[in-house]
Amino acid sequence: MRAVGVCGSDTHYLRHGRIGDHVVDAPLVLGHEASGVIVAVGDGVSPNRVGERVSIEPQRPDPTTAETKRGDYHLCPHMEFYATPPIDGAFAEYVTIGADFAHPVPPEVSDEAAALFEPLSVGIAALRKAAVAAGDSILIAGAGPIGLMIAQVARASGLARIVISEPDEQRRRRATDFGASHAIAPGEDTDPVDAFVDASGVAAAVRDGMTRVRPGGHVVLVGMGSDTMELPVTLIQNRELVVTGVFRYSNTWPTALALVRTGAVDLDAMVTARFGLDELTDALNADLRPGNIKAVVYPGISEWRAADQQTGEARR
Amino acid sequence: MRAVGVCGSDTHYLRHGRIGDHVVDAPLVLGHEASGVIVAVGDGVSPNRVGERVSIEPQRPDPTTAETKRGDYHLCPHMEFYATPPIDGAFAEYVTIGADFAHPVPPEVSDEAAALFEPLSVGIAALRKAAVAAGDSILIAGAGPIGLMIAQVARASGLARIVISEPDEQRRRRATDFGASHAIAPGEDTDPVDAFVDASGVAAAVRDGMTRVRPGGHVVLVGMGSDTMELPVTLIQNRELVVTGVFRYSNTWPTALALVRTGAVDLDAMVTARFGLDELTDALNADLRPGNIKAVVYPGISEWRAADQQTGEARR
Amino acid sequence: MRAVGVCGSDTHYLRHGRIGDHVVDAPLVLGHEASGVIVAVGDGVSPNRVGERVSIEPQRPDPTTAETKRGDYHLCPHMEFYATPPIDGAFAEYVTIGADFAHPVPPEVSDEAAALFEPLSVGIAALRKAAVAAGDSILIAGAGPIGLMIAQVARASGLARIVISEPDEQRRRRATDFGASHAIAPGEDTDPVDAFVDASGVAAAVRDGMTRVRPGGHVVLVGMGSDTMELPVTLIQNRELVVTGVFRYSNTWPTALALVRTGAVDLDAMVTARFGLDELTDALNADLRPGNIKAVVYPGISEWRAADQQTGEARR
Amino acid sequence: MRAVGVCGSDTHYLRHGRIGDHVVDAPLVLGHEASGVIVAVGDGVSPNRVGERVSIEPQRPDPTTAETKRGDYHLCPHMEFYATPPIDGAFAEYVTIGADFAHPVPPEVSDEAAALFEPLSVGIAALRKAAVAAGDSILIAGAGPIGLMIAQVARASGLARIVISEPDEQRRRRATDFGASHAIAPGEDTDPVDAFVDASGVAAAVRDGMTRVRPGGHVVLVGMGSDTMELPVTLIQNRELVVTGVFRYSNTWPTALALVRTGAVDLDAMVTARFGLDELTDALNADLRPGNIKAVVYPGISEWRAADQQTGEARR
Repeated sequence: MRAVGVCGSDTHYLRHGRIGDHVVDAPLVLGHEASGVIVAVGDGVSPNRVGERVSIEPQRPDPTTAETKRGDYHLCPHMEFYATPPIDGAFAEYVTIGADFAHPVPPEVSDEAAALFEPLSVGIAALRKAAVAAGDSILIAGAGPIGLMIAQVARASGLARIVISEPDEQRRRRATDFGASHAIAPGEDTDPVDAFVDASGVAAAVRDGMTRVRPGGHVVLVGMGSDTMELPVTLIQNRELVVTGVFRYSNTWPTALALVRTGAVDLDAMVTARFGLDELTDALNADLRPGNIKAVVYPGISEWRAADQQTGEARR
Repeated sequence: MRAVGVCGSDTHYLRHGRIGDHVVDAPLVLGHEASGVIVAVGDGVSPNRVGERVSIEPQRPDPTTAETKRGDYHLCPHMEFYATPPIDGAFAEYVTIGADFAHPVPPEVSDEAAALFEPLSVGIAALRKAAVAAGDSILIAGAGPIGLMIAQVARASGLARIVISEPDEQRRRRATDFGASHAIAPGEDTDPVDAFVDASGVAAAVRDGMTRVRPGGHVVLVGMGSDTMELPVTLIQNRELVVTGVFRYSNTWPTALALVRTGAVDLDAMVTARFGLDELTDALNADLRPGNIKAVVYPGISEWRAADQQTGEARR
Repeated sequence: MRAVGVCGSDTHYLRHGRIGDHVVDAPLVLGHEASGVIVAVGDGVSPNRVGERVSIEPQRPDPTTAETKRGDYHLCPHMEFYATPPIDGAFAEYVTIGADFAHPVPPEVSDEAAALFEPLSVGIAALRKAAVAAGDSILIAGAGPIGLMIAQVARASGLARIVISEPDEQRRRRATDFGASHAIAPGEDTDPVDAFVDASGVAAAVRDGMTRVRPGGHVVLVGMGSDTMELPVTLIQNRELVVTGVFRYSNTWPTALALVRTGAVDLDAMVTARFGLDELTDALNADLRPGNIKAVVYPGISEWRAADQQTGEARR
Repeated sequence: MRAVGVCGSDTHYLRHGRIGDHVVDAPLVLGHEASGVIVAVGDGVSPNRVGERVSIEPQRPDPTTAETKRGDYHLCPHMEFYATPPIDGAFAEYVTIGADFAHPVPPEVSDEAAALFEPLSVGIAALRKAAVAAGDSILIAGAGPIGLMIAQVARASGLARIVISEPDEQRRRRATDFGASHAIAPGEDTDPVDAFVDASGVAAAVRDGMTRVRPGGHVVLVGMGSDTMELPVTLIQNRELVVTGVFRYSNTWPTALALVRTGAVDLDAMVTARFGLDELTDALNADLRPGNIKAVVYPGISEWRAADQQTGEARR
């Protein structure tokens, strides 16, 4: 393992012991945003891959299910996913993953960036479902890490108006660094948009966002909140909105690599705190610090220190 | 006017004076399921059309709006729609409509059937949004007229399993006459389906239906109920369901004609009560009688009586 | 093996030793339309499956390629496909196939029908690409076995006008038994259609068919002919036709089963000749007999004879 | 009229008197890439629009046809299109157009740019049909004005690899200024692409381009050449390529405006020669000069001279 990002779901498991139906009832290694170097390969995998730097797509779908066969492998009912009980995750020195889910990365992509292909994939999946194209407009609720990922993908896709709605003023300000053309407070006026993506999980934000979408536009629910929400059904009907959610993602890594390589998406700038594997509790609580976007854990502490010296960046 | 069907929305306006934001605050002619014969044409329309039997598509979209131009003319914000305040409807002897919204029907299509192209169009629109194909499965909540229309279109489209969920036993029984392969009571077990269409407007039915849909399947909300509903957001996300609604319809009349002409859909069998224009109150309350599916009003009372004698059917 | 259909490609390999780039340069077992009974299972497959009657999907895609992962496993560049050199096919007593490509069939589906799920899958794939729905119209060129499969799927899908163009009068006549609403000679007039599917491989038929398609309609090339064809490019542009081809199929077996079970598609009626494994040369030349649609080989000769006695059908 | 671009089709009509079935058999005003200022309005149009600077969408579809109603108004069979016989075009001081086809432009969009929304729309339509997204790859054949428009839209859409194939070395060099990441000579090697768009009309380029597309990828034919081409049908089938053409465009002006306003597309830089209305023959032959991309005619000669002085640019 080279670098492992901390996700809100890791923190949620730590604090609450469950996410919906997924209950942590036995020790569980967290972490699912990961990059590393291949140190050993299984049968049928070329030994030449040893030494390869890879970004890990942290899922093991069953290739024989209907979902996988039609290209939605992330919806596979037999899925084993890192850090979802009872499958261990990546805050560790070594992990295993299917050879085709260990995606090689070129030298110009940093370890951190390679780790963050995972949350970037959520942004890519959200934009695909938003059904927008260059020149279109989008409203994103929430300027947390996922909201910023979505904004970056929207910018990379040429959207002309990218509005982020966010109550926190500091987060609003930084949103424009990561792709937003407009950052507004919840409830503030804005022109109708072609699509709305919720990255907040807040029912009021979802309801408000839906009212901003043009007839026939798409609504994508990414943020996790309560299991049920009071939603404006008559509005969905009268405008024939298309409402869907993003659970995970399929076939996003090639896109993620292309976007990062060309500089269209900047993942390095999203890393705001760095930790060793021995500082995991601090890392998992980094979200409580003002200004935090993404904390990254370096399981190989020596490499981390070397990286630290090279870049000369302050540690946190 | 030859025949005009009574729709639940007509009855709703009569009893409640409003549907959502649409308030009846001045006298309003109801009725929007209509067929007739052209007696006069405006400028630019061929006088040869006088005498033509037509099924009326009861909408007047503005051809210059973005919605109309992209093919969603039913979502046009300047829409004038029969029997939606303040636009008068079709319970009348004469109406006007755009020449291209008066669709010619051949002799083998009855006046009643031509009138019912309108609710059939709702069924066609619902099936299009359900994104299913021959061999697939569907769950429909509600065996009222719209539920039965959807079932008929599903059968015409070759769906292999068409399940209707309906609390009323008599309605369940008749559902199988109109396309359902299975009719179940709400909550009864059934295998997962590719799509769910609600034609009940009942929140509990919507929530239950959503749990029956396979990952990636579509949910189409057609039935009108309360403006908001408590919906299972986590389920929508985890299964990446695609939830949308049907308001009205665009480009359905050619399909309706094709389905009725080939006998794939039977509209005549859905007419369970017939009235003269002078019996409008009775017609609008026909939904209260057991066994009613669709009441039809004959504005031209003499024609209606002739038809009555021809067919020899009991009047009600 | 219970039953194995003879396909035009088997015959082509026999007579010409190649299809395009696929050259038979070593002994090759032909046959890829197959049903059978499981007699043994590999590691990781439930031993309970022994004894199961199955329809075989004759492909072994590589689960790790981009094509397979996005749901187009039939386009997988590492594909191993029955009876495509150097992979042996199913004119044999025993074959192996991936457990999830051996699809269980219920008792009401005959061995022959289960074998013919394969060519039916070509028809299903063609209809999916034709982008038509109930009430629409289609032109199919060629009333050979594949043309008839396409017509059957079109009928099952509720298409209102299904035109088959075919030079041979006898074949034209039978086309209407298998779904065509109109059977015309090549060049005969017909109204414009929503889609055109070529099942002839004849350049003149392809060119003629394209001229019959409405603006924005789809053209699907299924029949195999010469490697290149002179095509009407200006027509494709002016009408913005969407032209594509069917190579093989993905995710069609569940649909095939549903269509056969409900009786929407009749495969048994397409079997016009039956052979033992010792009569393979005769079987492969059965296409030369007038009236032949589909010859089927019974590798288990004793079962075949038993079946023959049961049904009391004349052998050929 | 403020500015009118010269298109290859104008030149073609001038030199050959016809394009395919469209024959110039009576005097015809050419020109269909146009911007202007509203000087008068018809009945039903707000008089407030007088004085508005507009980009003209040079088509008058019939709002009542099936094509228009389903959103493909550019495929309307009753279309009247500028400079397509017998409809006069825009090399004139005054023209008429439907109010909703005169799209207002803000001050930051120049007259030339507003005129070039028309060829930009061809690029937008091509990219929509190419079915690509941010991070994907594309091959474009031909670095003429339309090829460069397509490249600009591809860049604006975040495509990661944009390859232009072009025989002329000077044109290859400039291609990278307008969005291409790679410019190659015809036949030169390049990795497979997700989509291929032909903007050359050259059969050899079309055939070569098709071989570069990944399985399931799209091919869009934009360039006009001979009416028929020998195309690789087996390749289309084996890879299940989706081949279509661009005739004109629907619903592209809002996108064009968004792309130009945000600077994602630069139209001003494509203007390489400027003419008065009295120099029309020169303008129509400007394509023969080396380095020409787009010639623009200024019907209002005085404004043109003023503009010339303002910008201080060399006239040609």
